[in-house]
Amino acid sequence: MSVFAGFGSDNHSGVHPDILSALRNVNDGYVVAYGHDEYTEQAITQLKEIFGKKTAIFFVYNGTAANILGLRSVTDSFHSIFCAESAHLTVHECCGPENYIGAKLVNIPTPDGKLSVDFVEPYLIGVDDPHMAQPHVISITQATERGTVYRPKEIQSLADFAHHHNMLLHMDGARLCNAAAFLKTGLHEISGEAGVDVLSFGGTKNGMMYGEAVVFFDTQLAKNFEFIRKQGMQLTSKMRYISAQFSAFLANDLWLRNASHANEMARLLAEQLQNIPGIEITQKVEANMLYAVIPNQCITRLQKQYYFHRFNERTCEVRLMCSFTTQPPDVLSFAQAIRKTVGET
Amino acid sequence: MSVFAGFGSDNHSGVHPDILSALRNVNDGYVVAYGHDEYTEQAITQLKEIFGKKTAIFFVYNGTAANILGLRSVTDSFHSIFCAESAHLTVHECCGPENYIGAKLVNIPTPDGKLSVDFVEPYLIGVDDPHMAQPHVISITQATERGTVYRPKEIQSLADFAHHHNMLLHMDGARLCNAAAFLKTGLHEISGEAGVDVLSFGGTKNGMMYGEAVVFFDTQLAKNFEFIRKQGMQLTSKMRYISAQFSAFLANDLWLRNASHANEMARLLAEQLQNIPGIEITQKVEANMLYAVIPNQCITRLQKQYYFHRFNERTCEVRLMCSFTTQPPDVLSFAQAIRKTVGET
Amino acid sequence: MSVFAGFGSDNHSGVHPDILSALRNVNDGYVVAYGHDEYTEQAITQLKEIFGKKTAIFFVYNGTAANILGLRSVTDSFHSIFCAESAHLTVHECCGPENYIGAKLVNIPTPDGKLSVDFVEPYLIGVDDPHMAQPHVISITQATERGTVYRPKEIQSLADFAHHHNMLLHMDGARLCNAAAFLKTGLHEISGEAGVDVLSFGGTKNGMMYGEAVVFFDTQLAKNFEFIRKQGMQLTSKMRYISAQFSAFLANDLWLRNASHANEMARLLAEQLQNIPGIEITQKVEANMLYAVIPNQCITRLQKQYYFHRFNERTCEVRLMCSFTTQPPDVLSFAQAIRKTVGET
Amino acid sequence: MSVFAGFGSDNHSGVHPDILSALRNVNDGYVVAYGHDEYTEQAITQLKEIFGKKTAIFFVYNGTAANILGLRSVTDSFHSIFCAESAHLTVHECCGPENYIGAKLVNIPTPDGKLSVDFVEPYLIGVDDPHMAQPHVISITQATERGTVYRPKEIQSLADFAHHHNMLLHMDGARLCNAAAFLKTGLHEISGEAGVDVLSFGGTKNGMMYGEAVVFFDTQLAKNFEFIRKQGMQLTSKMRYISAQFSAFLANDLWLRNASHANEMARLLAEQLQNIPGIEITQKVEANMLYAVIPNQCITRLQKQYYFHRFNERTCEVRLMCSFTTQPPDVLSFAQAIRKTVGET
Repeated sequence: MSVFAGFGSDNHSGVHPDILSALRNVNDGYVVAYGHDEYTEQAITQLKEIFGKKTAIFFVYNGTAANILGLRSVTDSFHSIFCAESAHLTVHECCGPENYIGAKLVNIPTPDGKLSVDFVEPYLIGVDDPHMAQPHVISITQATERGTVYRPKEIQSLADFAHHHNMLLHMDGARLCNAAAFLKTGLHEISGEAGVDVLSFGGTKNGMMYGEAVVFFDTQLAKNFEFIRKQGMQLTSKMRYISAQFSAFLANDLWLRNASHANEMARLLAEQLQNIPGIEITQKVEANMLYAVIPNQCITRLQKQYYFHRFNERTCEVRLMCSFTTQPPDVLSFAQAIRKTVGET
Repeated sequence: MSVFAGFGSDNHSGVHPDILSALRNVNDGYVVAYGHDEYTEQAITQLKEIFGKKTAIFFVYNGTAANILGLRSVTDSFHSIFCAESAHLTVHECCGPENYIGAKLVNIPTPDGKLSVDFVEPYLIGVDDPHMAQPHVISITQATERGTVYRPKEIQSLADFAHHHNMLLHMDGARLCNAAAFLKTGLHEISGEAGVDVLSFGGTKNGMMYGEAVVFFDTQLAKNFEFIRKQGMQLTSKMRYISAQFSAFLANDLWLRNASHANEMARLLAEQLQNIPGIEITQKVEANMLYAVIPNQCITRLQKQYYFHRFNERTCEVRLMCSFTTQPPDVLSFAQAIRKTVGET
Repeated sequence: MSVFAGFGSDNHSGVHPDILSALRNVNDGYVVAYGHDEYTEQAITQLKEIFGKKTAIFFVYNGTAANILGLRSVTDSFHSIFCAESAHLTVHECCGPENYIGAKLVNIPTPDGKLSVDFVEPYLIGVDDPHMAQPHVISITQATERGTVYRPKEIQSLADFAHHHNMLLHMDGARLCNAAAFLKTGLHEISGEAGVDVLSFGGTKNGMMYGEAVVFFDTQLAKNFEFIRKQGMQLTSKMRYISAQFSAFLANDLWLRNASHANEMARLLAEQLQNIPGIEITQKVEANMLYAVIPNQCITRLQKQYYFHRFNERTCEVRLMCSFTTQPPDVLSFAQAIRKTVGET
Repeated sequence: MSVFAGFGSDNHSGVHPDILSALRNVNDGYVVAYGHDEYTEQAITQLKEIFGKKTAIFFVYNGTAANILGLRSVTDSFHSIFCAESAHLTVHECCGPENYIGAKLVNIPTPDGKLSVDFVEPYLIGVDDPHMAQPHVISITQATERGTVYRPKEIQSLADFAHHHNMLLHMDGARLCNAAAFLKTGLHEISGEAGVDVLSFGGTKNGMMYGEAVVFFDTQLAKNFEFIRKQGMQLTSKMRYISAQFSAFLANDLWLRNASHANEMARLLAEQLQNIPGIEITQKVEANMLYAVIPNQCITRLQKQYYFHRFNERTCEVRLMCSFTTQPPDVLSFAQAIRKTVGET
């Protein structure tokens, strides 16, 4: 029996049919490469309708690059970037940011993946001392790697703090759609409008095949990005195919429908698990993922049927993900498998 | 009237229908991300059937990354990389190699984009002198950026020279298919079998949407590549879609059919242009591109109808590209337009 | 009245007269640059008598470079380096290690600047996972930035742990002499003999003008160091002057006499301060520095007369340093000034 | 018999007695480290009297660092730096600039080590094209690595060209003193006054022990240099000793006396060699070095007695250097040895 990978990651899903259609629809004819085409113009226009006309927006292949190159554009090698200790940026990029930017990542412990001014403030030291990395960016993830979601006011508060101290606010929006779906807001309200300066806007985890957007809310910050993207190995030649995906992703609220569904499935899973004795849900389930402590031997047994990750290889806290393709019966079966395994031990 | 972009670059074409079908065919169901899926296993198996079982093969998004990360894996920051002065690596990567690897690119003048032992040998200086970059890699492009093609013996000769001097031979194979189609050889005969150590094997210019392969002919050279790829922002999450493209690309000789057609169209264009007074074809037309000197004012006029590049913005030598989608009537029309423009001036 | 800088840093002292004499003594005549001279040969020989013949030893200008280039030689950009949260490497090098090596510094909280296997072990995660920085080096400082000293067994225990997990042990020995003087051991017993793989051996803080040594206890680790040093801007042309300093530093136990004196002065200062009400000595005084909490307003007043640093700009813990030139009357006057200031408030 | 190293490099000489005295004279007492001391203030004041008050001036350890960090301050990783093919920057820094800055060095062939607008202009391509390195700096060496000297007008002409194209002019002034001595000008007339934006001002080759100055003629260009220097491993703790050297170097025209003597000795050597049959002096002898073609077997024989370098290991052109310590009898003996060796063959 093969292992069911559906709860392992939202990257384990395929691509939404509308996205696949979009790829076909732009396939005919010749268009100039590297983004000088009308499909790209169209997609950028759609994005600017959302994020505002005073933005500079660029496509790259993936979220790693969106984060690293976006930060590279606004950061010098002697700067530091504050982030939550659990941030993908610092945990799961194989020290790509340090390598590509030079800067130091300052890992700040948080209970739920969310930074706040209170958490950040004590790390603001060494300003103007050449011996010390210079605080320059606060990077937050929306929704966080722990499945929690920043409210607009929380973002604004961090933005105000950052700007007051000549710092910038960066947002890793790999799951921005899930956050907006949870909050029932638009995408802009929880990014640029709340004070974010640079945003990685992700599509891949929410139904696209590949492609992310880097959104600069101040065009001055983007003035070198075309060179940085090319040098950074992230300028796709056949750009129309990323653009077409984004156009379809934004049309008819596909992004919202996909994200809402994924969130809904995580809530369903939470409902199913919350009353199982021996299982402890450890984080609020706001986006499309659920963290829970499961007895160690149960994890081992379950992983024979279901592919999923421990949050940290040394603990019994596991991460369960849902996506736009998650089916309610699969959630129920999974919950049943967990219930059974825990009951047996 | 819109400008016809078909002769500007082989990147201006769309994607072959078989490739699009392949994307759809792997879309269903959940598979583990980052290459731990059966589609990737299948594609790697097909590539190993071509390039040999003792290879280590990895997918990245594009050719820039295939070159830079492949070279990064085998090069230290104090090394030098020899390449033709016209190599894409040194001319058109926005100094990405210097930035990412640290190493020095040694640009060697050549008449036709092809290095030879005689050209390379005088640059082999400073070995073991800590003041000087240490010669470590010879990088060649097959087919070259000038549309010429290395014969297997020429490659072997460079490989022997490199290995004799403790250097490696790298091949930028963005148009390896076009070279093989021209030589009527297999892909391995003009890469690993001829002594190449690391190969960038390109698909995008020959009908794929995105995705290139890095082929190490000595697995020891690849021992850190998984970390280098991830850190280098080139690990795609939904890997199945690159893998599916490669599987289709290699099945039924799609790669060969596409490349042969593109080459054939370049030859047709050459036939059409060769007798036009005032036009001088400057390079042998072996692969899918043609270089010609055209009077300056004609270039300006033609570019109102046709999108194409000057080889160097300061000269009147232009580059005309064909692709798998180039149609004979388009070639004839273009030739006619050139003939007319040149005749008028 | 000028501010007395003697307790601010051991870098505030001048150069020992024997060192100055040594500079004069090698000044005549021509010698080949970049270390190919007999003075350098002599100094390396002396160092090998201490650290063993199976070492590879190189001079650089300063401790920053000794640490960064020593680590660069044994670390790849996707590695992580574990160090105490208070390590100079991570706090006071303006993210030079991240910038030059690419690697991630993993900051481990410690009460006294000393790592132990218990502290380190939980951070050993993600091995072989390409998404995560690969644990590769444990870096310790001897004596630590907190003035404490690792015992040989403590070092051996970290070395065994590191080697068991295919990691290396690096030692920042900017104050190795002070540690040896405190422990009454030789320099080798607390470095190579205790399992250290790469050592930065410092002289500047202990009476030299400039110059530090990088000691590799396995010559294989040093195989590229000559290139790394040159490329890293740390190859001095007139090497004889660093070599002469080291020769004098090692001759007649100058290193030991200087370090013992500095340590003794710190102990004297501790004796003077320990009974002052309102002053809390916060770390064991083992080497040549003392940490104490002093009421905030006293710090402000004292700094009008004495130059010294707070450990962290946000706290009232100060660092007081002694050096080979510290005079007992200066210690007594300083203690008296503190006593007076604290008494007044 | 030992080999005479005096003509091998100006780095083979010792340190001028006035410099040694200066080191002793600043040795007493405590001063704050890292340049916050009165000796440094004094040296900077002296330098500003020469180079103007609107400069920002910093000390580093050596010329490699002065060049690399000076350029790093004004260059981004996607820029290119134009230099003569023979420039130390590109030939003898073990690709340090590429590694530390990322940027591409564009090597321009010249007959005598001197760039001119005519030589530079054809390389000004690709501006605003993200595929290509962006031309940003012209770097010249004064005196050049070939012993020739730029006249003020030649420098001004390159500066005008650079500024007209939004580029900067950098000068490697490792032997600026020799150039000024030859031209009988001040140091400013051939640097800042002639349009140079960033200067490496060298002392080590002209009688100092270590230490070079980076001079920014526009303080805006220097705004991050303190961080760049620290991060770049070039902030010396006991700064007073570099400062004291510069103060002595500039006092009583020591720099000029030393450089004039060295130049004079090179001229004497040229006079001696110019009429030896079989010897061809290949460059104008303007500064303190002489290039000559000597028959291959003579080189081999002479190198048993005299240490000197071939310009390129593959040719018979040798470089002979003089310094502030070169004695006329040594020049005459060397010339006699050459004469004898050439006569014998």
